[in-house]
Parts: sequence; C-alpha cells; structure tokens
Amino acid sequence: QTRSSFIQHYYQLFDNDRTQRGIIYIDASCLTWEGQQFQGKAAIVEMFSSFPFQKVQHSITVQDHLPTPDSCIVSMAVGHLKADEDPIMGSHQMFLLKNINDAWVCTNAMFRLALHNFG
Amino acid sequence: QTRSSFIQHYYQLFDNDRTQRGIIYIDASCLTWEGQQFQGKAAIVEMFSSFPFQKVQHSITVQDHLPTPDSCIVSMAVGHLKADEDPIMGSHQMFLLKNINDAWVCTNAMFRLALHNFG
Repeated sequence: QTRSSFIQHYYQLFDNDRTQRGIIYIDASCLTWEGQQFQGKAAIVEMFSSFPFQKVQHSITVQDHLPTPDSCIVSMAVGHLKADEDPIMGSHQMFLLKNINDAWVCTNAMFRLALHNFG
Repeated sequence: QTRSSFIQHYYQLFDNDRTQRGIIYIDASCLTWEGQQFQGKAAIVEMFSSFPFQKVQHSITVQDHLPTPDSCIVSMAVGHLKADEDPIMGSHQMFLLKNINDAWVCTNAMFRLALHNFG
C-alpha cells in the first residue's frame, strides 16, 4: 500500500511539477529511458527537463512490488500516458528503491513505451 | 551483450524445455507473475509447471540492463509471446540478477502481460 502510494505520488509530482521530476534520484542513480542510459541526478534532471512535450499525464493501471535480498524494493508500474495532444501510449517502468539515511531513493529505473512490445 | 544473451538464453530454455523454467531461481527468490507472488524455487517451479498452455514462444524486442549499487544487475525485457493458438500478447518482465558463488541467479522477477497497459 505504502509502496503503491510512493509510485502514485511520484507520477503526480512528475506530471504536475517539472522541477520535481528528479526528486527520488541521487548522484549514484543510474537509469535507462527508452534505452538511453543516464548516470547521476544532474544528468537525469537534465534529461527530464529536455522532454519535448509541454504537459504529460501518467495513468498507472497495475503495480507490483517485492523486497530484494539487499533490503531494497523493486517496483514495476504498468499503464499509459498522454503527452500534449499525442495519442495515448502504453508505458512501463521499473524502479529499484533503496533506503538511505531514512529516505527512500531510486537507485535504478527503466522506462519503455509499450510500442516496443511488437518491435 | 552478455546480459542480453543471458535473457535470450533463459527464454529459449523456458520455451523449449519446461523442466528448465526454474533454472535461474533459488530458494531466496521471490517473484510476481501477473500480480501473484511466489516465494522460493519450489513454488516458482510449481507455478511454471501449472501453466495451462502446451507450448509457448517468447520474442524479446528490447532489453535494458543496469548495474545496481549492491553489485546486482537489473534487466527489463519487453516483447511478446504466443501460447498455443491464442492471439499474440505483448509482455514485459524485469529480472534482478545477483552473482552468488560465481553463478548469476535471479532473486526477483516480475512479469506482466501488456493488456494491463490499458487497465
């Protein structure tokens, strides 16, 4: 429940306040976005700032969460998004969340549009 | 490259030899399959054995891989599958891979059909 709320809250921040898009990432974070790799909070924030759309809305339809042997949480969020007036696109993202100094941060994430499902 | 080969090899085993479907999991593994949680190699193998289809073929169209701060590898495989004579379905799966005693094993995995993208 808490984990689902974390993801929902993150996407709400992401959609509503572009200055908050990097909030869960740290300098040690590394993610892939549509297959391209970004290392460190600064590069991740810069990538999020360079999106070509003005507004975006994520809708998460299912979430899965599991504890890992290293006391992290791995999460997967499946759903769809609408960017500006583009057609709605399916999306999926995984997050690896780690508790550092009493805060949950995202050390790794991967995002893919569902259009890749069929090559 | 090695990581992509690992995933490709796993799906080939999965599709061609049902006795090998649990090969990358250990007693400490925990996964979700379409949202249902399975803990431990025995439960995972039993779940894989209970699939209602006779044959399945996975096609992976894109893969992403990242190292984690705990020296694991997180992978995401996006593609589609065909089970018996059912229509082809989009699928996505994440794997958290850990090196234990010089072997890469999967401690956590999550599988979802793409039909969930739209609720």
